[in-house]
Amino acid sequence: MTSDPEFSTAGAYVTTGEEFVRDQSYITTRITADGRDGYPVEPGRYRLVVSRACPWANRAIIVRRLLGLEDAMSLGVCGPTHDSRSWTFDLDPGGVDPVLGIPRIQDAYLRRFPDYPKGITVPAVVDVPSGAVVTNDYAQITLDLSTQWTAHHRPGAPDLYPEHLRDEIDQVARQVFTDVNNGVYRCGFAGSQEAYERAYRRLFARLDALEERLSGQRYLVGDTLTEADVRLFTTLVRFDAVYHGHFKCNRNKLTEMPVLWAYARDLFQTPGFGDTVDFDHIKRHYYVVHEDINPTQIVPAGPDLRGWLTPHGRESLGGRPFGDGTPPAPVRPEERVDPAHTAEAMAG
Amino acid sequence: MTSDPEFSTAGAYVTTGEEFVRDQSYITTRITADGRDGYPVEPGRYRLVVSRACPWANRAIIVRRLLGLEDAMSLGVCGPTHDSRSWTFDLDPGGVDPVLGIPRIQDAYLRRFPDYPKGITVPAVVDVPSGAVVTNDYAQITLDLSTQWTAHHRPGAPDLYPEHLRDEIDQVARQVFTDVNNGVYRCGFAGSQEAYERAYRRLFARLDALEERLSGQRYLVGDTLTEADVRLFTTLVRFDAVYHGHFKCNRNKLTEMPVLWAYARDLFQTPGFGDTVDFDHIKRHYYVVHEDINPTQIVPAGPDLRGWLTPHGRESLGGRPFGDGTPPAPVRPEERVDPAHTAEAMAG
Repeated sequence: MTSDPEFSTAGAYVTTGEEFVRDQSYITTRITADGRDGYPVEPGRYRLVVSRACPWANRAIIVRRLLGLEDAMSLGVCGPTHDSRSWTFDLDPGGVDPVLGIPRIQDAYLRRFPDYPKGITVPAVVDVPSGAVVTNDYAQITLDLSTQWTAHHRPGAPDLYPEHLRDEIDQVARQVFTDVNNGVYRCGFAGSQEAYERAYRRLFARLDALEERLSGQRYLVGDTLTEADVRLFTTLVRFDAVYHGHFKCNRNKLTEMPVLWAYARDLFQTPGFGDTVDFDHIKRHYYVVHEDINPTQIVPAGPDLRGWLTPHGRESLGGRPFGDGTPPAPVRPEERVDPAHTAEAMAG
Repeated sequence: MTSDPEFSTAGAYVTTGEEFVRDQSYITTRITADGRDGYPVEPGRYRLVVSRACPWANRAIIVRRLLGLEDAMSLGVCGPTHDSRSWTFDLDPGGVDPVLGIPRIQDAYLRRFPDYPKGITVPAVVDVPSGAVVTNDYAQITLDLSTQWTAHHRPGAPDLYPEHLRDEIDQVARQVFTDVNNGVYRCGFAGSQEAYERAYRRLFARLDALEERLSGQRYLVGDTLTEADVRLFTTLVRFDAVYHGHFKCNRNKLTEMPVLWAYARDLFQTPGFGDTVDFDHIKRHYYVVHEDINPTQIVPAGPDLRGWLTPHGRESLGGRPFGDGTPPAPVRPEERVDPAHTAEAMAG
């Protein structure tokens, strides 16, 4: 039995008696340097559409920023909640994306496939001239930003997917996806006690293993930031804010795992990570949209998130965050997270 | 608008758009030394019916044990969940209370008032000869155990409601009831975001004040255990297990408030407190019964509760837990909490 993916708008999330199974078939068209799928890399041609609530979209926001692709690919931001049809541009004046001129990202899906039968998901990359979605294959999107868009990376951009580490990055990412990124959803959307407990055990066994792995090294693979860190980060940064309570991932808070908590803070405080995180959008999305597990739609006032800004001490492990590169410049004003939605502002 | 009390079986807990208001009218008949209400203190005549899940019933279990009233008043224990009509004796062989001979505590309510119109609550004290409920007025029940049953207290029983401290105990208990004991319910059963946030702010403001109060003194009032401590304890011991996630009392866990957490552990490790606590019953009750806020009825596997057994260091504040008295003897075998349901066993 296949449930629809979470960051789609398919409606119900829990199927009684069933495990949650993420539908992992996406629009797999790629934007490549050689244009083999008909969509060549071309600065200014594509728009990355996200919700800041979504961990899968958050990956793309981070990678785009680390690589300095802001001028090459613009950013459209949907609001944290969505209607039954689609994520919408309700944050924009008039409720319409200023570049694509549409109120719903669904419109761009239908422009590509008039009978598109699946959930409408973010992130999605849209071809601006045609107004059609090129891809929503989030796992490939970030890898292609790293490997196909190199000609447009900023000076000093890090190599987030270095060739000699790809096998290891892929392997870690697979474990992290199954047990952590998607594991929290398998806890939260479990349709039976047994399915929930299976997912919970796998989640915390993996977190324990990561706690161990990261106790002696600053980053997941090699001694610099890689795609693997980006992928783990977007789940960890949501852990206490939503997964702990809403998805019942509650053996402990992230703050109670000293190594992972320090690792997550280290990333959070690295330019390109924490400055992409909108805790208000995250909380409102999960608690408002998943009516079948939170029928009152009341959004918790907690937790106190200011701990994200405390010293982490991970520098003593060495590591060179950006390798031979440099950190990205501060976030552009038009892309800044609302100051009221930051860890600093959210004391609970 | 009045909602029905939580530890009743009235059904829905949340009313959209409304605050949660606890119906506080109970059967106020008292069992007294002078028998003024027709029910005199008489050892062996009454049965205290509880659910170990319920914080209001937990008070009576603790006080009965601290005072050594086991022989004077027997104990009937309902299961953690209940049907739409009543708490039931589903833990007993044949699903029938061995002393009262009834499957539901509702039967004892109807024996007293054939048209009893309100929710069926625990704790309830039943007159065994007539099979009728005498009282379910939980706030008075414990005070009467302390003040009316003195002739049957064990040697060395503490004075939990000393005359010269009653004003202060009553005052603290009022604040703790409004903001904490009932405050967690006003968070969890709020029918609007505004009602929730009001309750949340009052809850944590009060917890902060208690954190401050208890930083320099071992117990809430005076230097010995009193009724005030019993009343605060039964909410604190449930805080991380259920209120933090299920009721969205999530600014922080109890474990993140160092003074209150040490205070709560001190009580938990005092004979008569922790040995009455059944964490399995607590978790199953809240998560299974409140379908309107947890429609999947899945019970979280966490949190890891073993921290309750760690050293608390509160002895350095002085205090004489039992005053001139002594701790109670170990729990009688027939009243012991299932070893699988204790903090020690529940690692999450």
